[in-house]
Amino acid sequence: MYKIVLMRHGESTWNLENRFTGWADVDLTEKGCAEAKKAGVLLREAGFTFDLAYSSMLKRAIRTLWITLDEMDLMWIPIVCDWHLNERHYGALQGMNKAETAEKYGQDKVMQWRRSFDIPPSLLEENDERTSYGDPRYVGLKREEIPLGECLKDTVERVVPYWNDTIAPQIRAGRNIIISAHGNSLRALIKMLDEINDQDIITLNIPNGRPIVYELDADLKPIRHYYLGDEGATAHSK
Amino acid sequence: MYKIVLMRHGESTWNLENRFTGWADVDLTEKGCAEAKKAGVLLREAGFTFDLAYSSMLKRAIRTLWITLDEMDLMWIPIVCDWHLNERHYGALQGMNKAETAEKYGQDKVMQWRRSFDIPPSLLEENDERTSYGDPRYVGLKREEIPLGECLKDTVERVVPYWNDTIAPQIRAGRNIIISAHGNSLRALIKMLDEINDQDIITLNIPNGRPIVYELDADLKPIRHYYLGDEGATAHSK
Repeated sequence: MYKIVLMRHGESTWNLENRFTGWADVDLTEKGCAEAKKAGVLLREAGFTFDLAYSSMLKRAIRTLWITLDEMDLMWIPIVCDWHLNERHYGALQGMNKAETAEKYGQDKVMQWRRSFDIPPSLLEENDERTSYGDPRYVGLKREEIPLGECLKDTVERVVPYWNDTIAPQIRAGRNIIISAHGNSLRALIKMLDEINDQDIITLNIPNGRPIVYELDADLKPIRHYYLGDEGATAHSK
Repeated sequence: MYKIVLMRHGESTWNLENRFTGWADVDLTEKGCAEAKKAGVLLREAGFTFDLAYSSMLKRAIRTLWITLDEMDLMWIPIVCDWHLNERHYGALQGMNKAETAEKYGQDKVMQWRRSFDIPPSLLEENDERTSYGDPRYVGLKREEIPLGECLKDTVERVVPYWNDTIAPQIRAGRNIIISAHGNSLRALIKMLDEINDQDIITLNIPNGRPIVYELDADLKPIRHYYLGDEGATAHSK
């Protein structure tokens, strides 16, 4: 049996401001840092240790991981940052708050984008300064690999191969891993692990900065999962 | 031509208390954190960027690197932590201050240990709680690879092969690298790079938290080096 830990980053400045974030590289709030520290305390006190960590390329996930690992005296373990674990790219909505998007696109359209599995949001124009072209994080990607907007299905289609090709072999090799990522890249992982259908995954809510423990069988199929510090709750909130 | 950056960690709690540190995993002081932040500002303002970082396994070097990379918006680059870059192991002196060692071993003996290239300090006993046996950082090492005390020559003999086998190929491959390490592991590197003799290297003094830029030719031989923020000073202070 294997045991892995998934963790959504702590509260970010744009979580607080209720803005669509996606690939925008905003930082944690003080509350977000405190959540990450508490996660580290919980993991340490529960006797967890890790020898390999994964994160997205985005600083809210990396800082969450740094604070957690610092608390666990594990600053020295390898951290692999990869764009496949980035948040769902929110296209033209990135940076806008919920009221602004409703005003610009209409409440129905915005709800459709938020509630559907396979309808992407309005895409960024190629010349929009919010695109990730030219960002040194992504110089290794082909231009067409850098999204201009994603539906959750698109996110699933990059997260799942990364799991299969990169993360799963490390788990099978016996590495104790933690993955620090985002609401939607974790939805993608959890959809695959728990075989959740396209509609139910949309409304699955993952709280910030809470370690989620997955116990996996020899085929990496989940036996059970729970939020650390709340072992009674075995299901994600909806 | 290649350009690399070496950096000794910022001031640690035991630097401040004037205690022999070695492999003891003490943290930075507030001043040490500020030095690391200033290093990041200097590097950013001078237009440096990195795509690969090396550190020892010790948190004073890792935290220095984290703070520096954070300031440069480079939290996402790969960081390789390796014990070969650890500080010289100070054996039975670890944790003792300079007055205590003089009282216990005599001033002459302590000066000999500090001033000689190839005389190791009094070694730790195998059952001393200060040994690194059982530390999860070093589980990959054979027991005989974990030092109980090193002279600078011993440190050179682990740092130089790591440079040759691991770091140098990455530089030749065009990676922009920064190395965060320690007074003596950096002495070891600088001895090799600048072909400094056994006596002169002992008295070479490397200040905390100051980025040292080395410009290297195609054979990785130094063309020149300088402390960033003090480009006039091309020699290490003695």
